[in-house]
Amino acid sequence: MNNKKWNANVERWGRFEIELELEGPANGNPFADIEITGAFTYRNRTVEADGFYDGNGKYRIRFMPDTLGEWKFTTISNHSSLNDISGSFTCTTPKENNHGPVQVTEQTHFQYADGKPFYPFGTTAYAWNHQGEKLEKQTLESLKNAPFNKIRMCVFPKHYDYNLHEPVDFAYVGSKEEGFDFTTFNPNFFNRLEKQIDDLNELGIEVDLIIFHPYDRWGFSNMGEEADDRYLSYLVARLASFRNVWWSFANEFDLIKSKNMHDWDRFFKIVQEKDPSQHLRSIHNWQNPTIHYRSNNHWYDHNKPWVTHASIQHHDMYFIKEWREGYRKPIINDECRYEGNINHGWGNITAEKMVELFWEGVCRGGYVTHGETYMHPEGVIWWSHGGELHGESPKRIAFLRRILEEGPAKRLNPIDFSWDVAAGAIGDEYMLVYFGQSRPSFKILPLPKGNRYKIELIDTWDMTITPLDGSYTDTSKIELPGKPYMGLRITKK
Amino acid sequence: MNNKKWNANVERWGRFEIELELEGPANGNPFADIEITGAFTYRNRTVEADGFYDGNGKYRIRFMPDTLGEWKFTTISNHSSLNDISGSFTCTTPKENNHGPVQVTEQTHFQYADGKPFYPFGTTAYAWNHQGEKLEKQTLESLKNAPFNKIRMCVFPKHYDYNLHEPVDFAYVGSKEEGFDFTTFNPNFFNRLEKQIDDLNELGIEVDLIIFHPYDRWGFSNMGEEADDRYLSYLVARLASFRNVWWSFANEFDLIKSKNMHDWDRFFKIVQEKDPSQHLRSIHNWQNPTIHYRSNNHWYDHNKPWVTHASIQHHDMYFIKEWREGYRKPIINDECRYEGNINHGWGNITAEKMVELFWEGVCRGGYVTHGETYMHPEGVIWWSHGGELHGESPKRIAFLRRILEEGPAKRLNPIDFSWDVAAGAIGDEYMLVYFGQSRPSFKILPLPKGNRYKIELIDTWDMTITPLDGSYTDTSKIELPGKPYMGLRITKK
Repeated sequence: MNNKKWNANVERWGRFEIELELEGPANGNPFADIEITGAFTYRNRTVEADGFYDGNGKYRIRFMPDTLGEWKFTTISNHSSLNDISGSFTCTTPKENNHGPVQVTEQTHFQYADGKPFYPFGTTAYAWNHQGEKLEKQTLESLKNAPFNKIRMCVFPKHYDYNLHEPVDFAYVGSKEEGFDFTTFNPNFFNRLEKQIDDLNELGIEVDLIIFHPYDRWGFSNMGEEADDRYLSYLVARLASFRNVWWSFANEFDLIKSKNMHDWDRFFKIVQEKDPSQHLRSIHNWQNPTIHYRSNNHWYDHNKPWVTHASIQHHDMYFIKEWREGYRKPIINDECRYEGNINHGWGNITAEKMVELFWEGVCRGGYVTHGETYMHPEGVIWWSHGGELHGESPKRIAFLRRILEEGPAKRLNPIDFSWDVAAGAIGDEYMLVYFGQSRPSFKILPLPKGNRYKIELIDTWDMTITPLDGSYTDTSKIELPGKPYMGLRITKK
Repeated sequence: MNNKKWNANVERWGRFEIELELEGPANGNPFADIEITGAFTYRNRTVEADGFYDGNGKYRIRFMPDTLGEWKFTTISNHSSLNDISGSFTCTTPKENNHGPVQVTEQTHFQYADGKPFYPFGTTAYAWNHQGEKLEKQTLESLKNAPFNKIRMCVFPKHYDYNLHEPVDFAYVGSKEEGFDFTTFNPNFFNRLEKQIDDLNELGIEVDLIIFHPYDRWGFSNMGEEADDRYLSYLVARLASFRNVWWSFANEFDLIKSKNMHDWDRFFKIVQEKDPSQHLRSIHNWQNPTIHYRSNNHWYDHNKPWVTHASIQHHDMYFIKEWREGYRKPIINDECRYEGNINHGWGNITAEKMVELFWEGVCRGGYVTHGETYMHPEGVIWWSHGGELHGESPKRIAFLRRILEEGPAKRLNPIDFSWDVAAGAIGDEYMLVYFGQSRPSFKILPLPKGNRYKIELIDTWDMTITPLDGSYTDTSKIELPGKPYMGLRITKK
């Protein structure tokens, strides 16, 4: 043993790390051969966290403590020099902007571990982390000024239209030409990924980390069972201590022909067993669920107990209520098409439509993820590469997010005001109503009896909020401007 | 027998009528008691057409001859004075604007009996015929200048929001207060209806005549089996000789709680048996078919042999291809929501959306029906009362109709260019492509190999057609303006 170190203090939901260095050159492949686990104990409670080999003779065990006070640990390893090393640290009060990892609450919603509500307003930049320093810096700068608090991004690089460059580096040692060694990880790649995840954490952004995806020319979508499982274990060991990580097992799992439903189930179970912090877990479909989801095995059954929320691809928010009732879990529509003007139909909706999808999704009790696909002279398209945002939807998404966060600190549940209105409520106290492309000149709404309500007209496109005169009670006729994209905020007086 | 008369000549697909008058007051109820049928013979072919009592001692038998030349007839009646009256007439060449009744052709399309293509561009004015002379005249005047060649209208008056006035008169003797006598028809009512149908015929408009509907405060939706069947027979006897009549058994049949599927089947069969001219027959649903149509008994099975075409209510044209394949019949989306600004969600879509639905429906190989629901100071709303058209969609619908009628005189069948494009084709000769709200800045289309094509860019909203430079062959990249509501007309050179 050359060296061992750890911090004396770590904030709650921060990252505690033990670094152990072995002397001299390693025999064999330490990634495959050496097992190391930390057993972390607070009073009578013990949590195990696997460690990992980080190259250059260094082994690390990371752990995210969730309880204030004194923690002890001991290592367990099949290598005698790494075994039975003990120590302790103090878990301290978290800094102001650290609210802990996001969890499910009230069956269909989210909160941080400290109880602060989390309303997902995600965006998509699948391969921003594979683009090199200059562009990655610009992406982070863009995110700093954007309304998004979650990002969908892939561990592996992306091969697809507009995505034909090679990435900066790879998760494994090797090359496309000579092949990759799926037993030997590339620690530099993971150090970069970790820095990216931390940078996002600084911006208050959750990372919906896509573990597998089909857009592949390197072989990462088809590594075989053993390599897949090793990869999952390594990911969990490295990243489970990052509080802003969510596990997204796939983007468009049903396009990955090499894996079947049993594989996806197994992946969920591996991560559920190994992750000491039980981060959120989901899987994302490709097939259009109006055609398939009730009967077809292209649709993953989000009722399975290891799925924490349904991560859905669909263009119609109407079904959110049905999914909420069917899965009794939060619903995030993680791809509902993107604002832009590329050739593909999923990437050329108007900003108006993007904003409409957000409002409708939120009012129906779900959450929605943004993406942007404008043609660009250098081929830098936000949805994959990051870079700059050019669209008209983000500022309107910010407006919606503000409205939601200003509301009572509970979450909207869909109500049946009328089939043609998307409406969410918090009991009889607060209602958010949205008319979308419909443009009624008035509407008769059955407000709860016995209360008096203040109503504000929201122009979701012009981003104005105009109080309506008077107060409303029981079934009320509400005059409206007969324009698309109007909403109402209805608040109990 | 006081009087008997008929014409010596009638044009092909015109209306031949025998009038027979009985002397003195009638005993009993001639509507119920007296049966009369005409047997019409051309060479060896005999067709039977039932006659009907028209009040004031007058009985009529009507018949629409479909073959040029000499026809003979004999009457058959349970009343001796009406029995065994014979005569003949000559069926002459039709006038220029008489193309005969509309029939199904090429499995999923329509043509007039003389072979001229008929592309349905319908509108909806459910109760225009119940509004009195002044408004009815205005409606006909509006239709004269509108692009519509089919209208959905009800025999019975309508009770619903914005429809609370009493109609001019009723199909039966009686009143709402004292009840109606469902054995005694009101000939004045039917004479008015017939004049209205003839006026529409003069304008080249087919009448999609709605026989039953649920919006009723008078009892016509719940008359009982016997009265229902008598009503159907009477309708057929009076109207089967009007070449522009289509039988629509119901608007929103699944809202009529007094009738079940067996009733609807029986109605179809009665009319199929009695109608000598075999006019088009359909039935129209209420329930949203994305939810129900595959499994639910709220959805009528349009595969039944007596259904000539599917008359569907649905907001999404995407399913037309599936319905075409499932029913192998023409698909008319007879209600896809209406341009307007009333409170109801089905009646406040934008003109842009109405036009989009027409283009998408037509390019997917179906047909679409218009409606308009703008608030009006006197409550005159086109969708029900007729009156004036105020919307922005009719002139764009006219533009689409012109494009269709200018095309090769065959009908569009949907093609799988790409999931995100609505496209219909005539073999490899002609393609009409529509992008809807999508706004690609370019599109790669797999044009048939070995041909050269001319492409025109159609701005379906601004109503312009701009030829693109050059000619196109095989898989072609087509530059587009990145705006919504664009289409392409692709013609083989």
